[in-house]
Amino acid sequence: MSSKLFSRVRCKGLQDKITKPSSLLSSFQGHQTIGWSGFTGVDYPLQTLEPLINEVRSNKAFAKPKFDLRVCSSGGTVTESALSELDMVCSRSPYQVSKVINKSLNNGKIDFHDHSLIDFAEQLTSGYLGAKDGKPQTLDIAIVEATEITPEGNLVPGASVGVTPELIQVADKLVVEMNTNSPSLRGIHDLCVPASPPYRNPLNVCTSSDRIGQTEIPLDPKKVIGIVEGSHGKFPSRTEPSNSTTRAISQHIIDFLKNETHRGRVPENLHPIQSGIGAIANSVIEGLGNSSFRNLQVWTEVLQDSFLDLLKSGTVQYASSMSLRFSPQELENFYKNWDFYKEHVILRPQAITNSPEIIRRLGCISLNTPVEVDLYGHVNSTCVMGTRMLNGIGGSGDFMRNAKLSIMHTPSVRPTKTDPIGISTIVPKVTHVDHTEHDIDIVVTEQGLADLRGLSPRERAIEIIENCAHPVYRPILMDYFTLAESVCLKEKRGHEPLLLDKAFKMHTSFLEEGSMKVSSW
Amino acid sequence: MSSKLFSRVRCKGLQDKITKPSSLLSSFQGHQTIGWSGFTGVDYPLQTLEPLINEVRSNKAFAKPKFDLRVCSSGGTVTESALSELDMVCSRSPYQVSKVINKSLNNGKIDFHDHSLIDFAEQLTSGYLGAKDGKPQTLDIAIVEATEITPEGNLVPGASVGVTPELIQVADKLVVEMNTNSPSLRGIHDLCVPASPPYRNPLNVCTSSDRIGQTEIPLDPKKVIGIVEGSHGKFPSRTEPSNSTTRAISQHIIDFLKNETHRGRVPENLHPIQSGIGAIANSVIEGLGNSSFRNLQVWTEVLQDSFLDLLKSGTVQYASSMSLRFSPQELENFYKNWDFYKEHVILRPQAITNSPEIIRRLGCISLNTPVEVDLYGHVNSTCVMGTRMLNGIGGSGDFMRNAKLSIMHTPSVRPTKTDPIGISTIVPKVTHVDHTEHDIDIVVTEQGLADLRGLSPRERAIEIIENCAHPVYRPILMDYFTLAESVCLKEKRGHEPLLLDKAFKMHTSFLEEGSMKVSSW
Repeated sequence: MSSKLFSRVRCKGLQDKITKPSSLLSSFQGHQTIGWSGFTGVDYPLQTLEPLINEVRSNKAFAKPKFDLRVCSSGGTVTESALSELDMVCSRSPYQVSKVINKSLNNGKIDFHDHSLIDFAEQLTSGYLGAKDGKPQTLDIAIVEATEITPEGNLVPGASVGVTPELIQVADKLVVEMNTNSPSLRGIHDLCVPASPPYRNPLNVCTSSDRIGQTEIPLDPKKVIGIVEGSHGKFPSRTEPSNSTTRAISQHIIDFLKNETHRGRVPENLHPIQSGIGAIANSVIEGLGNSSFRNLQVWTEVLQDSFLDLLKSGTVQYASSMSLRFSPQELENFYKNWDFYKEHVILRPQAITNSPEIIRRLGCISLNTPVEVDLYGHVNSTCVMGTRMLNGIGGSGDFMRNAKLSIMHTPSVRPTKTDPIGISTIVPKVTHVDHTEHDIDIVVTEQGLADLRGLSPRERAIEIIENCAHPVYRPILMDYFTLAESVCLKEKRGHEPLLLDKAFKMHTSFLEEGSMKVSSW
Repeated sequence: MSSKLFSRVRCKGLQDKITKPSSLLSSFQGHQTIGWSGFTGVDYPLQTLEPLINEVRSNKAFAKPKFDLRVCSSGGTVTESALSELDMVCSRSPYQVSKVINKSLNNGKIDFHDHSLIDFAEQLTSGYLGAKDGKPQTLDIAIVEATEITPEGNLVPGASVGVTPELIQVADKLVVEMNTNSPSLRGIHDLCVPASPPYRNPLNVCTSSDRIGQTEIPLDPKKVIGIVEGSHGKFPSRTEPSNSTTRAISQHIIDFLKNETHRGRVPENLHPIQSGIGAIANSVIEGLGNSSFRNLQVWTEVLQDSFLDLLKSGTVQYASSMSLRFSPQELENFYKNWDFYKEHVILRPQAITNSPEIIRRLGCISLNTPVEVDLYGHVNSTCVMGTRMLNGIGGSGDFMRNAKLSIMHTPSVRPTKTDPIGISTIVPKVTHVDHTEHDIDIVVTEQGLADLRGLSPRERAIEIIENCAHPVYRPILMDYFTLAESVCLKEKRGHEPLLLDKAFKMHTSFLEEGSMKVSSW
């Protein structure tokens, strides 16, 4: 144990909790509900469960514990992948990004609860996590990242907050992983746990820089069963480069936003931006950086490299996020310029970043990438072919339902192994609905942008086919729509035309023949 | 014009606007966007457009105007039915209950925009109603109900508020229909228009009796083109009687709520109740009245007869609603006991009753009736067989997404002309999704109650089939699920099993053979 670790545990009364992960081995046994935080930022916990994983791997006589994982949202993929491989995970919620876990969700080994991030945070404190015996289920053990414990015994989180405050409040026992690879991030956080109804008050955030909480989280020392050193891994550097498709999508969005400000429907500095992860999101942020927009606000879940330049140049005035996800060099840059960034960035728990109350009050402009979109604007964000879970709904529902402008951006086609345009992301009917037609304002592909606001379903279908579909699929989709419209109007049930026996024909054609190019309806 | 009318227009400066509807005929011409308020309560406007309707009917040479109707939510069915019959309606939003309008939505004559009530209210003030030329579209004329104009020139609404404050704010011209059949309702309202982002502040309602607005709405006299007498019709008395099915559903819900309080997950006086209209809703309210629950709060859209007894007995302590919908005798009773009820009831605009911020803060218990529910808890509330619009999503999405307990109640079967159990409301896959699996906590039929909280999709399917499906459909649904599960797990895409070519087989069987009783999969 390093002297660094001791220097970060500044509360004398907690220094005797400093220990090695191996000494916590006996705490993990039987069937337990355990949770940890982390949100696409750092990969932790790495240390606490390592001795357990090693023991199970090497000692066949060891009584393998089983876990229900409450892991928000996608931290610790190394750890949970190992647990899953060793068949130690019974259920898991919510959003996840581990390929190993993903396999087990889809082959039936793990029960996956796909909650919206706001609902997951609120369920943690309201005492209902789905215990089958009907008892309010809490957490047996939570593992939480820290970058400091203050002299008063309060915890300063790291670069990803997630549900850390809730975990500390509800878990029976706590393990603190002190991230000594990061400096103390004291001062950048705004932390609180909204009370459960009927005792909740307004969450008084009216702009992305408003603070309503504390910079630290009080710890109950009796709960802490160990403080271990977490030599946490570097931040991942998976920023996907832009390409002509993502740049075209970005350009359509920038043009649209310019037009909105021009018409006076959106302020000159827009509304606070929420944007996801991935190549399209990066292109949009790049596009904003190259545009004439200034003094933007950001209200999002993950802050990536591209935002740092925008903060420095003043294009973005203030950014509120739930986590940081920088490349190693930008992370270093962030710490070097800590005094500047600390005045321009706040890290918050997801109960605040994903609060419908705040998202709607701020009037966010929200951008997300779907699996597929249908002719009426229903969106599938989670289940390929309606069945195979990808990652989960995450925060997309919290934002799409409440944002002032809900924008779905996607390439119009995706490649298969044999056909670069084998999959159309615009389909007659999505095979799974995560966001309904009532919630989507804009659909945009590299082909163009469909503004669905105030359109009836039949008007939307034409807007989407003409503006968003790939030229190869455009006539196929139009043929379907024309047929569906004619049949349903004739039968006087034509508000939202649909042919139940043909709606998934592009999908079944893909499953059977490897392409969505339906030759006739 | 009666002396009653003059006595209600207590502002001298506005008395010269008192006029006959026929004098307003020339104000309605060309292609206009017009709106009126009313929300399942009173049937208005009856008077303002009557001369126009008569003129169009009798005078073929008359240049018939065309309207885009922004009518929230279901007031004035007589008027809009007449307009639709005369082919004077181009588009309409949102929720509606007119059979004539319904026909035109489904045969393609009227473009219907099915907005959630909160979104409709916010769109009115944010200047985007869907103008095809991209210009912010406002309202040319709004017709608003009043029960008094105060000496200061402020309007006191009637028994249904809806979007009256927004209409008065955004319309270019206003016609006031003074409802002289009702006493002045001054004092019962809490009225405000939340500012549009980025200028919105928290809506500081923390319990159903909190007030944040005014009891009247300021009028701009320059906008008022006429004040006419509205001898508004009596309230409708369509309260559907309970039956053994609805009583069984109610009992399951009451038992569930008792168990929730017993386990300490819900307070002894529950959370504020939102309940819809119809026989099941009435049975639930009756059930609450006969239970041991006391000091309940109500936060809902429509207050019906059954609530009055509960207010008198103290079972309900306070009720907040968007409108009143009483039978004639209970309405009389309400006015007789005005001093009591005024202290126990608030009427609010839908921007407040349907605010996600407030619904989530209060932690409402929300009850609604769907068209159909599927094995995973997705809900269709609007489109029969995925295509034929019934009434619209109304406020159900605002509540289901944000309530602490989102409950869908429905009989397990509905009759066809030839088969009393020809339609199962539990289906493999809903043909249209208005509420996703992420938002529904409880599904309940006369057969039983399925508690979906914290269950994975495959667990939910079994819970719903075993507890909610009709015995005749139970094996049919279980056969489908077993097959789908086995196929999808084998193909390692089994998170949410689905057979795309069979998912709608019960529906197509119904369309082709008149029954959902599929004999084999």
